[in-house]
Amino acid sequence: MAVVGTGLIGTSVALAAGRHGVKVHLMDRDESAVRAAVALGAGASGVPAGPVDLAVLAVPPNAVGAVLAEQQARGLAHSYTDVASVKHTVDRQVLHEAADPSCFVGGHPLAGRERSGPLAARANLFEDRSWVLTPSNVTSRTTLNRTLELIALCGAVPLIMDSRDHDDVVALVSHAPHAVASLMAARLRHAPKEAARLAGQGVRDVTRVAAGDALLWADILGANAAPVAAVLRELREDLSVLLAALDRLAVAPPDGDRQIAKEMVDLLDQGVAGLAEIQGRHDGESPARTRVWVTLDGRPGELARLLTALTEFGVRADDVTVRPLTDSGKPGLSVEFAASAAANETLISGLVASGWHAESARPARRAPGKAEALA
Amino acid sequence: MAVVGTGLIGTSVALAAGRHGVKVHLMDRDESAVRAAVALGAGASGVPAGPVDLAVLAVPPNAVGAVLAEQQARGLAHSYTDVASVKHTVDRQVLHEAADPSCFVGGHPLAGRERSGPLAARANLFEDRSWVLTPSNVTSRTTLNRTLELIALCGAVPLIMDSRDHDDVVALVSHAPHAVASLMAARLRHAPKEAARLAGQGVRDVTRVAAGDALLWADILGANAAPVAAVLRELREDLSVLLAALDRLAVAPPDGDRQIAKEMVDLLDQGVAGLAEIQGRHDGESPARTRVWVTLDGRPGELARLLTALTEFGVRADDVTVRPLTDSGKPGLSVEFAASAAANETLISGLVASGWHAESARPARRAPGKAEALA
Repeated sequence: MAVVGTGLIGTSVALAAGRHGVKVHLMDRDESAVRAAVALGAGASGVPAGPVDLAVLAVPPNAVGAVLAEQQARGLAHSYTDVASVKHTVDRQVLHEAADPSCFVGGHPLAGRERSGPLAARANLFEDRSWVLTPSNVTSRTTLNRTLELIALCGAVPLIMDSRDHDDVVALVSHAPHAVASLMAARLRHAPKEAARLAGQGVRDVTRVAAGDALLWADILGANAAPVAAVLRELREDLSVLLAALDRLAVAPPDGDRQIAKEMVDLLDQGVAGLAEIQGRHDGESPARTRVWVTLDGRPGELARLLTALTEFGVRADDVTVRPLTDSGKPGLSVEFAASAAANETLISGLVASGWHAESARPARRAPGKAEALA
Repeated sequence: MAVVGTGLIGTSVALAAGRHGVKVHLMDRDESAVRAAVALGAGASGVPAGPVDLAVLAVPPNAVGAVLAEQQARGLAHSYTDVASVKHTVDRQVLHEAADPSCFVGGHPLAGRERSGPLAARANLFEDRSWVLTPSNVTSRTTLNRTLELIALCGAVPLIMDSRDHDDVVALVSHAPHAVASLMAARLRHAPKEAARLAGQGVRDVTRVAAGDALLWADILGANAAPVAAVLRELREDLSVLLAALDRLAVAPPDGDRQIAKEMVDLLDQGVAGLAEIQGRHDGESPARTRVWVTLDGRPGELARLLTALTEFGVRADDVTVRPLTDSGKPGLSVEFAASAAANETLISGLVASGWHAESARPARRAPGKAEALA
């Protein structure tokens, strides 16, 4: 195979395929990028003697059409794919500019790092990641299958989509969030000197992706302009509602206006609801969870010891609910938390072995206490 | 001391002070919150017999004035502080509502977690964090010093600020970013089913803080309405510039409009510039860094082995620059990277001991090769 463009993605593809014994030819306009990729063991520099099976065009979205035309004229490969994060304009370029668009299938591996360039490359960059393919109605089955084979070599999970649908989704979950992060980060330019001391993890998380290469991201946003604008226009409408609410609150009495406060809570709740849509993993479902109950006699420090024990079993304290034991005037507590169904039995026997009174069904009326106290 | 409000912050303060032998009285309108805090070992439940030295009012911003008036009437403590993330409106409430505002100093520990409630509390939550105090011109020195002592017990670093300045800074580095994250997360509500598979770390980072409690955050944003609105209004202006650029690009020819593209790059570059303002640590300066050079003979895989070795020494590959050796036609490479001045000598001797040709000054003309090859 051949890789044209030995940046982060191209070099990582080469490393991943090379692991499986595939001979990789590396090309880049920037000689030092090729040299670094070769030194990393990603393959050999230069054009192969005859056409290879598959060439990966790991170049910016705007360049894919021209590079494909150029490499088809030279006869670099039998099939071609790209890795650009925008697919509809690329497909349109290919249909207009390529000698033979049937040999091309658009691709987008959902993997990346904040840093770019071959030195950031990793053979395992794509493992368990989604890799979208957007075959057009002229894409040949051979080209599609060669690309699916590459995706398998990279350990990624293929996902076939219409290119417009792909672009709408990445506008929502990648390009618009990037723009929003940049706009927020830009506000920090004239921050007073105390800002760095008051800045916590929150603002660092919100703005982190804004560190990305501005030229590359301007290219990406421009290539997906209409879908990104649609998301940001809706966001601007909500922002205007929020600003109107804040303006009214700024002049309201200290207790505020309950109606405005409710509007703000609703806006924030919409954010909480939106988060749920991207929490899912590959299949959109989290593993089955079951409940575990532990009863405590309520001595100071006992709950802290239980939380420590749970941490050792991999249960997050955030999932825990504590209630007083309702059937007694004593200070006993009922502690309830979720565990994955798979880990449930191990967890309960582990807790019981450590002396806790743990069970997988809500305890009936029972005196509180640790297991050894009850024994 | 006393803690009124045994949520995440109040319980963490109690745990931190309790570690140093301070007797802590815990109070909360929600009895189960007090019970959980007591069970965690944070202190004893209920009102002390006589006034304590210091009471921490860990209640929402809007409630501080009323709670202070109530507790002063009861004679809970000699001095009071709060932990609300908005200070000017709190100070105003206190001056209007408190029987004796000289006994109060506003405080804001810059620490928190996404989860709230006593079960998320940690004794070390404040370690090495900034803790702002906003004394008014009536705050007594005794009250200020008692609160500084508490901050020291919590392992935090005090920072005295004017309450308006504080509110402007947190609007910029906390409240506006939170609002932006919520607005972006709200866009995800009607995401198509593929969105979860295409959503990467970027959008998860940008939107993570939107998971925070909507009621609490509406209260915070409302209490700091004018400064937050000022930041968001400027952001909306940039957003409108970006939207206009995207709208023009959406109808531009594939090659796009160079002028618009430049506008977009400028907007994104402003984000990159803004990030630099919050990168600093406490003193706003990063540790002194010096350069290290390693020369390689350019054999495939050699660079990968060096990068692995550097990782073991704690050097990030992102900091590395690779150049061909300019004084020879051979495939040798000069690898340059930054290390902190303190770690520099250890790193170089470690690399040399492992057989690398490493030095702390740019190598002069010299044949490439690992140290043992030169020996």
